[in-house]
Amino acid sequence: MARVDFPRWQESIQKRIESALEAYLPNANSPPVRLHQAMRYVTLAGGKRVRPLLCHAAGEIFSAPLTTLDQLSSAVEMIHVYSLVHDDLPAMDNDVLRRGKPTCHIQFDEATALLVGDALQSLAFYVAAQPIADVTPEKQLAMLSLLANAAGSRGMAGGQAIDLEATGESLEIVELEFMHVQKTGQLIQAATLLGAHAGNAQPMDIQNLAHFANRIGLLFQVVDDILDAEASTHALGKTAGKDADSNKATYLTLLGAKSAHVLAEGLREEAHEALSSFGDNALRLHQLTDYIVARKS
Amino acid sequence: MARVDFPRWQESIQKRIESALEAYLPNANSPPVRLHQAMRYVTLAGGKRVRPLLCHAAGEIFSAPLTTLDQLSSAVEMIHVYSLVHDDLPAMDNDVLRRGKPTCHIQFDEATALLVGDALQSLAFYVAAQPIADVTPEKQLAMLSLLANAAGSRGMAGGQAIDLEATGESLEIVELEFMHVQKTGQLIQAATLLGAHAGNAQPMDIQNLAHFANRIGLLFQVVDDILDAEASTHALGKTAGKDADSNKATYLTLLGAKSAHVLAEGLREEAHEALSSFGDNALRLHQLTDYIVARKS
Repeated sequence: MARVDFPRWQESIQKRIESALEAYLPNANSPPVRLHQAMRYVTLAGGKRVRPLLCHAAGEIFSAPLTTLDQLSSAVEMIHVYSLVHDDLPAMDNDVLRRGKPTCHIQFDEATALLVGDALQSLAFYVAAQPIADVTPEKQLAMLSLLANAAGSRGMAGGQAIDLEATGESLEIVELEFMHVQKTGQLIQAATLLGAHAGNAQPMDIQNLAHFANRIGLLFQVVDDILDAEASTHALGKTAGKDADSNKATYLTLLGAKSAHVLAEGLREEAHEALSSFGDNALRLHQLTDYIVARKS
Repeated sequence: MARVDFPRWQESIQKRIESALEAYLPNANSPPVRLHQAMRYVTLAGGKRVRPLLCHAAGEIFSAPLTTLDQLSSAVEMIHVYSLVHDDLPAMDNDVLRRGKPTCHIQFDEATALLVGDALQSLAFYVAAQPIADVTPEKQLAMLSLLANAAGSRGMAGGQAIDLEATGESLEIVELEFMHVQKTGQLIQAATLLGAHAGNAQPMDIQNLAHFANRIGLLFQVVDDILDAEASTHALGKTAGKDADSNKATYLTLLGAKSAHVLAEGLREEAHEALSSFGDNALRLHQLTDYIVARKS
Protein backbone atom coordinates (compact mmCIF):
# COMPACT_ATOMS: atom_id res chain seq x y z
CA MET A 1 0.00 0.00 0.00
CA ALA A 2 1.40 3.36 -1.03
CA ARG A 3 1.62 5.71 1.92
CA VAL A 4 1.80 9.50 2.01
CA ASP A 5 5.08 11.04 3.09
CA PHE A 6 5.71 11.74 6.77
CA PRO A 7 4.94 15.49 6.82
CA ARG A 8 1.58 14.90 5.13
CA TRP A 9 0.74 12.02 7.48
CA GLN A 10 1.77 14.14 10.47
CA GLU A 11 -0.37 17.03 9.29
CA SER A 12 -3.40 14.82 8.68
CA ILE A 13 -3.20 13.36 12.21
CA GLN A 14 -2.68 16.79 13.75
CA LYS A 15 -5.83 17.99 11.97
CA ARG A 16 -7.80 14.98 13.18
CA ILE A 17 -6.67 15.62 16.77
CA GLU A 18 -7.46 19.32 16.58
CA SER A 19 -11.00 18.45 15.42
CA ALA A 20 -11.42 15.75 18.06
CA LEU A 21 -10.23 18.02 20.88
CA GLU A 22 -12.41 20.83 19.57
CA ALA A 23 -15.46 18.54 19.68
CA TYR A 24 -14.72 17.17 23.16
CA LEU A 25 -14.09 20.59 24.74
CA PRO A 26 -17.07 22.48 26.19
CA ASN A 27 -18.48 25.26 24.03
CA ALA A 28 -16.87 28.65 24.74
CA ASN A 29 -20.31 30.21 25.21
CA SER A 30 -21.58 27.74 27.81
CA PRO A 31 -21.11 28.73 31.46
CA PRO A 32 -18.73 29.05 33.16
CA VAL A 33 -17.66 31.00 30.08
CA ARG A 34 -14.27 32.21 31.28
CA LEU A 35 -13.22 28.71 32.36
CA HIS A 36 -14.37 27.17 29.08
CA GLN A 37 -12.65 29.87 27.04
CA ALA A 38 -9.43 29.25 28.95
CA MET A 39 -9.71 25.46 28.48
CA ARG A 40 -10.00 26.00 24.72
CA TYR A 41 -7.21 28.60 24.72
CA VAL A 42 -4.68 26.18 26.18
CA THR A 43 -5.83 23.01 24.41
CA LEU A 44 -6.39 24.33 20.88
CA ALA A 45 -3.12 26.25 20.82
CA GLY A 46 -1.54 23.85 18.35
CA GLY A 47 1.59 22.17 19.61
CA LYS A 48 3.42 19.25 18.08
CA ARG A 49 0.89 16.69 19.35
CA VAL A 50 3.70 14.18 19.84
CA ARG A 51 1.62 11.91 22.08
CA PRO A 52 -1.36 11.73 19.68
CA LEU A 53 1.08 11.04 16.82
CA LEU A 54 2.62 8.18 18.81
CA CYS A 55 -0.84 6.82 19.67
CA HIS A 56 -1.91 6.88 16.02
CA ALA A 57 1.39 5.46 14.77
CA ALA A 58 1.23 2.57 17.25
CA GLY A 59 -2.43 1.94 16.49
CA GLU A 60 -1.69 1.85 12.76
CA ILE A 61 0.51 -1.22 13.25
CA PHE A 62 -2.56 -3.16 14.39
CA SER A 63 -5.09 -1.45 12.11
CA ALA A 64 -6.90 0.20 15.01
CA PRO A 65 -9.88 2.38 13.93
CA LEU A 66 -8.83 6.00 13.48
CA THR A 67 -11.78 7.38 15.46
CA THR A 68 -10.80 5.22 18.44
CA LEU A 69 -7.25 6.55 18.20
CA ASP A 70 -8.61 10.11 18.03
CA GLN A 71 -10.54 9.49 21.24
CA LEU A 72 -7.63 7.98 23.16
CA SER A 73 -5.19 10.58 21.78
CA SER A 74 -7.49 13.36 22.94
CA ALA A 75 -7.58 11.96 26.47
CA VAL A 76 -3.78 11.69 26.61
CA GLU A 77 -3.28 15.15 25.11
CA MET A 78 -5.66 16.72 27.66
CA ILE A 79 -3.58 15.20 30.46
CA HIS A 80 -0.44 16.59 28.81
CA VAL A 81 -1.94 20.06 28.31
CA TYR A 82 -3.25 20.25 31.88
CA SER A 83 0.25 19.42 33.15
CA LEU A 84 1.74 22.26 31.08
CA VAL A 85 -0.80 24.74 32.46
CA HIS A 86 0.00 23.75 36.06
CA ASP A 87 3.76 23.55 35.44
CA ASP A 88 3.74 27.12 34.12
CA LEU A 89 2.16 28.50 37.32
CA PRO A 90 4.24 30.83 39.53
CA ALA A 91 4.42 28.19 42.30
CA MET A 92 6.07 25.82 39.80
CA ASP A 93 8.16 26.91 36.80
CA ASN A 94 6.69 30.43 36.70
CA ASP A 95 6.74 30.69 32.92
CA VAL A 96 5.00 33.38 30.87
CA LEU A 97 5.35 31.97 27.35
CA ARG A 98 4.10 28.69 25.88
CA ARG A 99 3.83 27.85 22.17
CA GLY A 100 4.57 31.50 21.39
CA LYS A 101 1.61 32.78 23.40
CA PRO A 102 1.09 34.01 26.97
CA THR A 103 0.66 31.12 29.41
CA CYS A 104 -2.79 30.54 30.87
CA HIS A 105 -2.28 32.36 34.16
CA ILE A 106 -0.89 35.38 32.26
CA GLN A 107 -3.69 35.45 29.66
CA PHE A 108 -6.37 34.74 32.28
CA ASP A 109 -5.38 34.51 35.95
CA GLU A 110 -3.85 32.04 38.39
CA ALA A 111 -7.10 30.72 39.82
CA THR A 112 -8.47 30.12 36.33
CA ALA A 113 -5.27 28.34 35.28
CA LEU A 114 -5.52 26.09 38.32
CA LEU A 115 -9.14 25.19 37.49
CA VAL A 116 -8.38 24.78 33.76
CA GLY A 117 -5.84 22.10 34.63
CA ASP A 118 -8.19 20.42 37.09
CA ALA A 119 -11.12 20.42 34.67
CA LEU A 120 -8.98 19.19 31.76
CA GLN A 121 -7.86 16.22 33.81
CA SER A 122 -11.48 15.34 34.62
CA LEU A 123 -12.42 15.73 30.96
CA ALA A 124 -9.54 13.47 29.90
CA PHE A 125 -10.93 10.61 31.98
CA TYR A 126 -14.46 11.37 30.82
CA VAL A 127 -13.29 11.05 27.21
CA ALA A 128 -11.33 7.87 27.96
CA ALA A 129 -14.45 6.32 29.52
CA GLN A 130 -16.75 6.88 26.52
CA PRO A 131 -17.76 3.65 24.74
CA ILE A 132 -15.23 2.31 22.23
CA ALA A 133 -16.20 -0.15 19.52
CA ASP A 134 -13.88 -3.15 18.98
CA VAL A 135 -12.46 -2.98 22.50
CA THR A 136 -14.12 -4.87 25.36
CA PRO A 137 -15.23 -2.71 28.31
CA GLU A 138 -12.97 -4.80 30.61
CA LYS A 139 -10.02 -3.91 28.46
CA GLN A 140 -11.07 -0.27 28.26
CA LEU A 141 -11.12 -0.11 32.07
CA ALA A 142 -7.59 -1.51 32.10
CA MET A 143 -6.53 1.08 29.51
CA LEU A 144 -8.04 3.81 31.68
CA SER A 145 -6.07 2.49 34.66
CA LEU A 146 -2.91 2.64 32.59
CA LEU A 147 -3.59 6.29 31.76
CA ALA A 148 -4.46 7.19 35.35
CA ASN A 149 -1.31 5.52 36.61
CA ALA A 150 0.85 7.32 34.04
CA ALA A 151 -0.65 10.66 35.09
CA GLY A 152 -0.43 10.19 38.85
CA SER A 153 2.10 10.25 41.65
CA ARG A 154 4.01 7.29 40.23
CA GLY A 155 3.99 8.88 36.79
CA MET A 156 3.83 12.43 35.49
CA ALA A 157 2.81 14.26 38.70
CA GLY A 158 5.41 12.26 40.65
CA GLY A 159 8.11 13.13 38.13
CA GLN A 160 7.26 16.79 38.47
CA ALA A 161 7.59 16.47 42.27
CA ILE A 162 11.03 14.88 41.90
CA ASP A 163 12.00 17.63 39.45
CA LEU A 164 11.02 20.32 41.98
CA GLU A 165 12.92 18.65 44.79
CA ALA A 166 15.95 18.29 42.56
CA THR A 167 16.21 21.91 41.41
CA GLY A 168 19.50 23.27 42.65
CA GLU A 169 20.58 19.80 43.79
CA SER A 170 23.33 17.81 42.11
CA LEU A 171 21.74 14.77 40.51
CA GLU A 172 23.34 11.57 39.32
CA ILE A 173 22.52 10.54 35.76
CA VAL A 174 20.41 7.61 37.00
CA GLU A 175 18.35 9.94 39.19
CA LEU A 176 17.84 12.28 36.26
CA GLU A 177 16.72 9.36 34.15
CA PHE A 178 14.30 8.14 36.85
CA MET A 179 12.83 11.63 37.06
CA HIS A 180 12.33 11.88 33.31
CA VAL A 181 10.87 8.38 32.98
CA GLN A 182 8.16 9.48 35.42
CA LYS A 183 7.71 13.08 34.31
CA THR A 184 7.64 12.60 30.53
CA GLY A 185 8.22 8.94 29.77
CA GLN A 186 5.17 7.38 31.35
CA LEU A 187 2.62 9.49 29.49
CA ILE A 188 4.51 8.97 26.22
CA GLN A 189 4.44 5.26 26.93
CA ALA A 190 0.74 5.39 27.78
CA ALA A 191 0.00 7.17 24.48
CA THR A 192 1.86 4.48 22.55
CA LEU A 193 0.38 1.53 24.42
CA LEU A 194 -3.18 2.85 24.30
CA GLY A 195 -2.86 3.03 20.52
CA ALA A 196 -1.62 -0.55 20.40
CA HIS A 197 -4.34 -1.79 22.79
CA ALA A 198 -6.96 -0.11 20.59
CA GLY A 199 -5.81 -2.51 17.86
CA ASN A 200 -5.83 -5.44 20.29
CA ALA A 201 -2.05 -5.90 20.18
CA GLN A 202 -0.65 -9.09 21.72
CA PRO A 203 1.33 -9.06 25.01
CA MET A 204 4.66 -9.51 23.21
CA ASP A 205 3.88 -6.55 20.95
CA ILE A 206 2.99 -4.46 24.00
CA GLN A 207 6.28 -5.42 25.61
CA ASN A 208 8.26 -4.35 22.55
CA LEU A 209 6.36 -1.09 22.28
CA ALA A 210 6.82 -0.39 25.99
CA HIS A 211 10.56 -0.67 25.48
CA PHE A 212 10.37 1.50 22.35
CA ALA A 213 8.37 4.15 24.24
CA ASN A 214 10.79 4.10 27.14
CA ARG A 215 13.66 4.94 24.76
CA ILE A 216 11.59 7.55 22.92
CA GLY A 217 10.61 9.20 26.19
CA LEU A 218 14.23 9.64 27.22
CA LEU A 219 15.25 10.64 23.71
CA PHE A 220 12.56 13.31 23.74
CA GLN A 221 13.94 14.71 27.01
CA VAL A 222 17.59 14.66 25.96
CA VAL A 223 16.66 16.54 22.79
CA ASP A 224 14.58 18.96 24.89
CA ASP A 225 17.59 19.67 27.09
CA ILE A 226 19.77 20.23 24.01
CA LEU A 227 17.18 22.57 22.48
CA ASP A 228 16.76 24.51 25.72
CA ALA A 229 20.48 25.26 25.66
CA GLU A 230 21.00 25.71 21.94
CA ALA A 231 17.77 27.08 20.42
CA SER A 232 16.32 30.58 20.71
CA THR A 233 13.18 31.56 22.60
CA HIS A 234 11.68 32.53 19.27
CA ALA A 235 12.27 29.13 17.69
CA LEU A 236 11.05 27.25 20.79
CA GLY A 237 7.92 29.32 21.37
CA LYS A 238 8.75 29.10 25.07
CA THR A 239 11.46 30.67 27.17
CA ALA A 240 14.87 29.22 26.19
CA GLY A 241 17.77 28.85 28.60
CA LYS A 242 15.42 28.27 31.54
CA ASP A 243 17.31 25.20 32.74
CA ALA A 244 20.62 26.98 33.16
CA ASP A 245 18.91 30.01 34.74
CA SER A 246 17.12 27.89 37.30
CA ASN A 247 20.20 25.77 38.01
CA LYS A 248 18.45 22.58 36.96
CA ALA A 249 20.25 19.31 36.37
CA THR A 250 19.89 18.40 32.69
CA TYR A 251 21.58 15.98 30.33
CA LEU A 252 23.59 18.97 29.10
CA THR A 253 24.82 20.03 32.53
CA LEU A 254 25.59 16.43 33.56
CA LEU A 255 27.13 15.16 30.34
CA GLY A 256 28.15 18.20 28.33
CA ALA A 257 26.81 18.96 24.85
CA LYS A 258 28.89 16.45 22.96
CA SER A 259 28.00 13.45 25.13
CA ALA A 260 24.35 14.50 25.18
CA HIS A 261 24.32 14.33 21.39
CA VAL A 262 25.97 10.89 21.52
CA LEU A 263 23.38 9.72 24.08
CA ALA A 264 20.56 10.95 21.84
CA GLU A 265 22.00 9.03 18.90
CA GLY A 266 22.24 5.85 20.98
CA LEU A 267 18.65 6.16 22.18
CA ARG A 268 17.50 6.78 18.62
CA GLU A 269 19.13 3.54 17.48
CA GLU A 270 17.68 1.56 20.38
CA ALA A 271 14.22 2.91 19.59
CA HIS A 272 14.49 1.77 15.98
CA GLU A 273 15.73 -1.67 17.07
CA ALA A 274 12.80 -2.10 19.48
CA LEU A 275 10.47 -1.92 16.45
CA SER A 276 12.20 -4.68 14.49
CA SER A 277 9.44 -7.27 14.94
CA PHE A 278 6.84 -5.00 13.31
CA GLY A 279 8.59 -4.64 9.96
CA ASP A 280 7.16 -2.07 7.60
CA ASN A 281 3.99 -1.68 9.70
CA ALA A 282 5.96 0.47 12.12
CA LEU A 283 6.97 2.98 9.43
CA ARG A 284 5.31 5.92 11.23
CA LEU A 285 6.95 5.06 14.56
CA HIS A 286 10.35 4.92 12.80
CA GLN A 287 9.66 8.27 11.20
CA LEU A 288 8.48 9.77 14.49
CA THR A 289 11.69 8.62 16.14
CA ASP A 290 13.77 10.52 13.61
CA TYR A 291 11.43 13.49 13.81
CA ILE A 292 11.90 13.72 17.59
CA VAL A 293 15.65 14.00 17.05
CA ALA A 294 15.45 16.43 14.14
CA ARG A 295 12.81 18.81 15.56
CA LYS A 296 13.79 22.41 16.20
CA SER A 297 11.23 23.22 18.91
CA MET B 1 -33.35 -6.83 60.94
CA ALA B 2 -32.15 -4.90 63.97
CA ARG B 3 -29.80 -2.12 63.00
CA VAL B 4 -27.19 -0.31 65.05
CA ASP B 5 -27.91 3.31 65.95
CA PHE B 6 -26.80 6.09 63.61
CA PRO B 7 -23.61 7.19 65.43
CA ARG B 8 -22.33 3.61 65.49
CA TRP B 9 -23.19 3.05 61.82
CA GLN B 10 -21.53 6.35 60.91
CA GLU B 11 -18.41 5.44 62.86
CA SER B 12 -18.21 1.99 61.29
CA ILE B 13 -18.43 3.43 57.76
CA GLN B 14 -15.88 6.15 58.57
CA LYS B 15 -13.50 3.46 59.80
CA ARG B 16 -14.02 1.40 56.63
CA ILE B 17 -13.32 4.48 54.45
CA GLU B 18 -10.23 5.42 56.42
CA SER B 19 -8.87 1.88 55.88
CA ALA B 20 -9.79 1.85 52.21
CA LEU B 21 -8.18 5.25 51.55
CA GLU B 22 -5.12 4.18 53.53
CA ALA B 23 -4.75 1.08 51.35
CA TYR B 24 -5.26 2.93 48.05
CA LEU B 25 -2.79 5.75 48.86
CA PRO B 26 0.86 5.23 47.94
CA ASN B 27 3.18 4.25 50.79
CA ALA B 28 4.72 7.26 52.53
CA ASN B 29 8.18 5.75 52.09
CA SER B 30 7.97 5.21 48.34
CA PRO B 31 9.38 7.98 46.13
CA PRO B 32 8.52 10.76 45.61
CA VAL B 33 8.37 10.67 49.42
CA ARG B 34 7.38 14.27 50.05
CA LEU B 35 4.49 14.09 47.57
CA HIS B 36 3.25 10.80 48.98
CA GLN B 37 3.50 12.07 52.56
CA ALA B 38 1.51 15.14 51.59
CA MET B 39 -1.14 13.05 49.80
CA ARG B 40 -1.59 11.01 52.97
CA TYR B 41 -1.54 14.12 55.18
CA VAL B 42 -4.51 15.67 53.37
CA THR B 43 -6.50 12.49 52.74
CA LEU B 44 -6.15 10.73 56.07
CA ALA B 45 -6.93 13.86 58.09
CA GLY B 46 -10.35 12.58 59.13
CA GLY B 47 -13.23 14.78 58.09
CA LYS B 48 -16.91 13.95 58.18
CA ARG B 49 -16.74 11.74 55.07
CA VAL B 50 -20.22 12.92 54.08
CA ARG B 51 -19.87 11.68 50.48
CA PRO B 52 -18.74 8.16 51.48
CA LEU B 53 -21.58 8.03 54.02
CA LEU B 54 -24.08 8.96 51.28
CA CYS B 55 -22.57 6.39 48.92
CA HIS B 56 -22.83 3.65 51.54
CA ALA B 57 -26.32 4.68 52.64
CA ALA B 58 -27.60 4.68 49.05
CA GLY B 59 -25.88 1.36 48.30
CA GLU B 60 -27.43 -0.19 51.41
CA ILE B 61 -30.93 0.32 49.94
CA PHE B 62 -30.01 -2.10 47.12
CA SER B 63 -27.77 -4.40 49.18
CA ALA B 64 -24.63 -3.37 47.30
CA PRO B 65 -21.46 -5.14 48.53
CA LEU B 66 -19.68 -3.07 51.18
CA THR B 67 -16.25 -3.47 49.56
CA THR B 68 -17.61 -2.07 46.28
CA LEU B 69 -19.03 0.90 48.18
CA ASP B 70 -15.65 1.38 49.90
CA GLN B 71 -13.96 1.51 46.49
CA LEU B 72 -16.40 3.99 44.95
CA SER B 73 -16.51 6.09 48.12
CA SER B 74 -12.72 6.30 48.11
CA ALA B 75 -12.68 7.58 44.53
CA VAL B 76 -15.30 10.24 45.32
CA GLU B 77 -13.57 11.27 48.54
CA MET B 78 -10.21 11.66 46.73
CA ILE B 79 -11.89 14.03 44.26
CA HIS B 80 -13.36 15.96 47.18
CA VAL B 81 -10.07 16.13 49.07
CA TYR B 82 -8.10 17.24 46.00
CA SER B 83 -10.61 20.08 45.51
CA LEU B 84 -10.13 21.23 49.11
CA VAL B 85 -6.34 21.26 48.69
CA HIS B 86 -6.57 23.38 45.52
CA ASP B 87 -9.31 25.64 46.93
CA ASP B 88 -7.13 26.45 49.94
CA LEU B 89 -4.23 27.69 47.73
CA PRO B 90 -3.33 31.40 47.85
CA ALA B 91 -4.56 31.90 44.26
CA MET B 92 -8.00 30.65 45.36
CA ASP B 93 -9.40 30.97 48.91
CA ASN B 94 -5.99 31.41 50.55
CA ASP B 95 -6.84 29.49 53.67
CA VAL B 96 -4.38 28.28 56.29
CA LEU B 97 -6.54 25.98 58.40
CA ARG B 98 -8.48 22.85 57.41
CA ARG B 99 -9.93 20.28 59.78
CA GLY B 100 -8.01 21.96 62.60
CA LYS B 101 -4.63 21.50 60.92
CA PRO B 102 -2.44 23.64 58.65
CA THR B 103 -3.56 23.40 55.01
CA CYS B 104 -1.35 21.49 52.59
CA HIS B 105 0.52 24.47 51.14
CA ILE B 106 1.25 25.72 54.68
CA GLN B 107 2.39 22.34 56.01
CA PHE B 108 4.36 21.56 52.83
CA ASP B 109 4.55 24.19 50.07
CA GLU B 110 2.45 25.53 47.20
CA ALA B 111 4.00 23.43 44.46
CA THR B 112 3.51 20.27 46.51
CA ALA B 113 -0.12 21.20 47.24
CA LEU B 114 -0.72 21.70 43.54
CA LEU B 115 0.75 18.28 42.71
CA VAL B 116 -1.04 16.60 45.62
CA GLY B 117 -4.36 17.72 44.15
CA ASP B 118 -3.37 16.67 40.65
CA ALA B 119 -2.14 13.25 41.76
CA LEU B 120 -5.19 12.63 43.97
CA GLN B 121 -7.48 13.27 41.02
CA SER B 122 -5.54 10.75 38.90
CA LEU B 123 -5.66 8.24 41.75
CA ALA B 124 -9.43 8.73 42.12
CA PHE B 125 -9.99 7.62 38.53
CA TYR B 126 -7.48 4.80 38.91
CA VAL B 127 -9.45 3.51 41.89
CA ALA B 128 -12.78 3.94 40.07
CA ALA B 129 -11.44 1.89 37.15
CA GLN B 130 -10.37 -1.15 39.19
CA PRO B 131 -12.51 -4.25 38.55
CA ILE B 132 -15.79 -4.41 40.48
CA ALA B 133 -17.65 -7.67 40.99
CA ASP B 134 -21.43 -7.63 40.41
CA VAL B 135 -21.26 -4.59 38.12
CA THR B 136 -20.76 -5.03 34.37
CA PRO B 137 -17.70 -3.25 32.92
CA GLU B 138 -20.03 -1.28 30.57
CA LYS B 139 -21.90 0.02 33.57
CA GLN B 140 -18.68 0.74 35.44
CA LEU B 141 -17.48 2.89 32.51
CA ALA B 142 -20.77 4.80 32.68
CA MET B 143 -20.29 5.26 36.44
CA LEU B 144 -16.79 6.55 35.82
CA SER B 145 -18.19 9.03 33.26
CA LEU B 146 -20.69 10.21 35.85
CA LEU B 147 -17.88 10.84 38.34
CA ALA B 148 -15.68 12.61 35.74
CA ASN B 149 -18.57 14.81 34.71
CA ALA B 150 -19.39 15.72 38.31
CA ALA B 151 -15.75 16.68 38.92
CA GLY B 152 -15.19 18.70 35.74
CA SER B 153 -16.02 22.08 34.25
CA ARG B 154 -19.76 21.37 34.27
CA GLY B 155 -19.54 20.13 37.84
CA MET B 156 -17.26 20.85 40.79
CA ALA B 157 -14.45 22.69 38.99
CA GLY B 158 -16.99 24.75 37.05
CA GLY B 159 -18.82 25.66 40.26
CA GLN B 160 -15.58 26.83 41.78
CA ALA B 161 -14.97 29.02 38.70
CA ILE B 162 -18.43 30.57 39.07
CA ASP B 163 -17.77 31.12 42.77
CA LEU B 164 -14.54 32.98 41.99
CA GLU B 165 -16.18 35.16 39.38
CA ALA B 166 -19.02 35.93 41.77
CA THR B 167 -16.91 37.05 44.74
CA GLY B 168 -17.73 40.70 45.39
CA GLU B 169 -20.61 40.59 42.89
CA SER B 170 -24.24 40.74 43.87
CA LEU B 171 -25.82 37.39 43.03
CA GLU B 172 -29.47 36.48 42.66
CA ILE B 173 -30.61 33.49 44.68
CA VAL B 174 -31.04 31.39 41.49
CA GLU B 175 -27.44 32.14 40.49
CA LEU B 176 -26.23 31.19 43.95
CA GLU B 177 -28.17 27.93 43.69
CA PHE B 178 -26.72 27.18 40.23
CA MET B 179 -23.23 27.77 41.58
CA HIS B 180 -23.75 25.45 44.54
CA VAL B 181 -25.40 22.72 42.47
CA GLN B 182 -22.20 22.62 40.42
CA LYS B 183 -19.64 23.24 43.15
CA THR B 184 -20.98 20.90 45.85
CA GLY B 185 -24.17 19.32 44.58
CA GLN B 186 -22.88 17.33 41.64
CA LEU B 187 -20.23 15.41 43.59
CA ILE B 188 -22.71 14.73 46.39
CA GLN B 189 -25.13 13.46 43.77
CA ALA B 190 -22.41 11.34 42.16
CA ALA B 191 -21.56 9.79 45.53
CA THR B 192 -25.21 8.88 46.10
CA LEU B 193 -25.85 7.56 42.59
CA LEU B 194 -22.62 5.54 42.46
CA GLY B 195 -23.72 3.76 45.62
CA ALA B 196 -27.12 3.02 44.07
CA HIS B 197 -25.59 1.85 40.76
CA ALA B 198 -23.31 -0.48 42.71
CA GLY B 199 -26.49 -2.22 43.86
CA ASN B 200 -27.92 -2.17 40.33
CA ALA B 201 -30.71 0.26 41.19
CA GLN B 202 -33.48 0.72 38.60
CA PRO B 203 -33.85 3.94 36.57
CA MET B 204 -36.82 5.13 38.67
CA ASP B 205 -34.81 4.62 41.86
CA ILE B 206 -31.92 6.58 40.34
CA GLN B 207 -34.29 9.39 39.45
CA ASN B 208 -35.64 9.59 43.01
CA LEU B 209 -32.15 9.50 44.48
CA ALA B 210 -30.94 12.17 42.06
CA HIS B 211 -33.70 14.44 43.35
CA PHE B 212 -32.88 13.53 46.95
CA ALA B 213 -29.18 14.28 46.36
CA ASN B 214 -29.99 17.60 44.72
CA ARG B 215 -31.90 18.69 47.84
CA ILE B 216 -29.21 17.34 50.17
CA GLY B 217 -26.49 19.16 48.22
CA LEU B 218 -28.23 22.50 48.64
CA LEU B 219 -29.14 21.73 52.24
CA PHE B 220 -25.49 20.98 52.94
CA GLN B 221 -24.50 24.37 51.52
CA VAL B 222 -27.18 26.37 53.32
CA VAL B 223 -26.10 24.79 56.61
CA ASP B 224 -22.46 25.52 55.71
CA ASP B 225 -23.29 29.17 55.21
CA ILE B 226 -25.15 29.28 58.52
CA LEU B 227 -22.24 27.61 60.33
CA ASP B 228 -19.70 29.95 58.73
CA ALA B 229 -21.60 32.89 60.20
CA GLU B 230 -22.63 31.40 63.53
CA ALA B 231 -19.97 28.86 64.58
CA SER B 232 -16.45 29.51 65.88
CA THR B 233 -13.21 28.74 64.06
CA HIS B 234 -12.44 26.24 66.81
CA ALA B 235 -15.69 24.32 66.32
CA LEU B 236 -15.38 24.35 62.52
CA GLY B 237 -11.72 23.34 62.34
CA LYS B 238 -11.43 25.87 59.53
CA THR B 239 -11.49 29.65 59.49
CA ALA B 240 -14.98 30.91 60.41
CA GLY B 241 -16.47 34.15 59.10
CA LYS B 242 -14.57 33.84 55.81
CA ASP B 243 -17.65 34.51 53.70
CA ALA B 244 -18.42 37.88 55.25
CA ASP B 245 -14.72 38.85 55.23
CA SER B 246 -14.37 38.04 51.52
CA ASN B 247 -17.69 39.70 50.65
CA LYS B 248 -19.11 36.48 49.24
CA ALA B 249 -22.75 36.02 48.39
CA THR B 250 -24.18 33.34 50.70
CA TYR B 251 -27.65 32.20 51.69
CA LEU B 252 -27.13 34.23 54.85
CA THR B 253 -26.24 37.46 53.07
CA LEU B 254 -29.03 37.04 50.48
CA LEU B 255 -31.81 35.80 52.74
CA GLY B 256 -30.85 36.76 56.27
CA ALA B 257 -30.40 34.24 59.09
CA LYS B 258 -34.06 33.58 59.77
CA SER B 259 -35.02 32.82 56.15
CA ALA B 260 -31.90 30.70 55.70
CA HIS B 261 -33.03 28.52 58.59
CA VAL B 262 -36.51 28.27 57.04
CA LEU B 263 -34.98 27.32 53.67
CA ALA B 264 -32.88 24.63 55.35
CA GLU B 265 -35.98 23.18 57.01
CA GLY B 266 -37.82 23.12 53.66
CA LEU B 267 -34.96 21.34 51.92
CA ARG B 268 -34.73 18.84 54.74
CA GLU B 269 -38.42 17.97 54.33
CA GLU B 270 -38.11 17.66 50.54
CA ALA B 271 -35.12 15.37 50.96
CA HIS B 272 -37.08 13.07 53.26
CA GLU B 273 -40.03 13.05 50.84
CA ALA B 274 -37.80 12.10 47.91
CA LEU B 275 -37.00 8.87 49.76
CA SER B 276 -40.61 7.80 50.26
CA SER B 277 -40.54 4.96 47.72
CA PHE B 278 -37.68 3.20 49.55
CA GLY B 279 -39.50 2.76 52.87
CA ASP B 280 -37.36 1.56 55.75
CA ASN B 281 -34.48 0.63 53.42
CA ALA B 282 -33.55 4.32 53.23
CA LEU B 283 -33.15 4.63 57.02
CA ARG B 284 -29.50 5.71 56.76
CA LEU B 285 -30.27 8.35 54.13
CA HIS B 286 -33.04 9.75 56.36
CA GLN B 287 -30.64 9.83 59.30
CA LEU B 288 -27.91 11.45 57.18
CA THR B 289 -30.35 14.16 56.13
CA ASP B 290 -31.04 15.07 59.74
CA TYR B 291 -27.34 14.80 60.58
CA ILE B 292 -26.46 17.31 57.85
CA VAL B 293 -28.83 19.81 59.45
CA ALA B 294 -27.76 19.12 63.04
CA ARG B 295 -23.98 19.06 62.51
CA LYS B 296 -21.86 21.66 64.27
CA SER B 297 -18.91 21.70 61.88
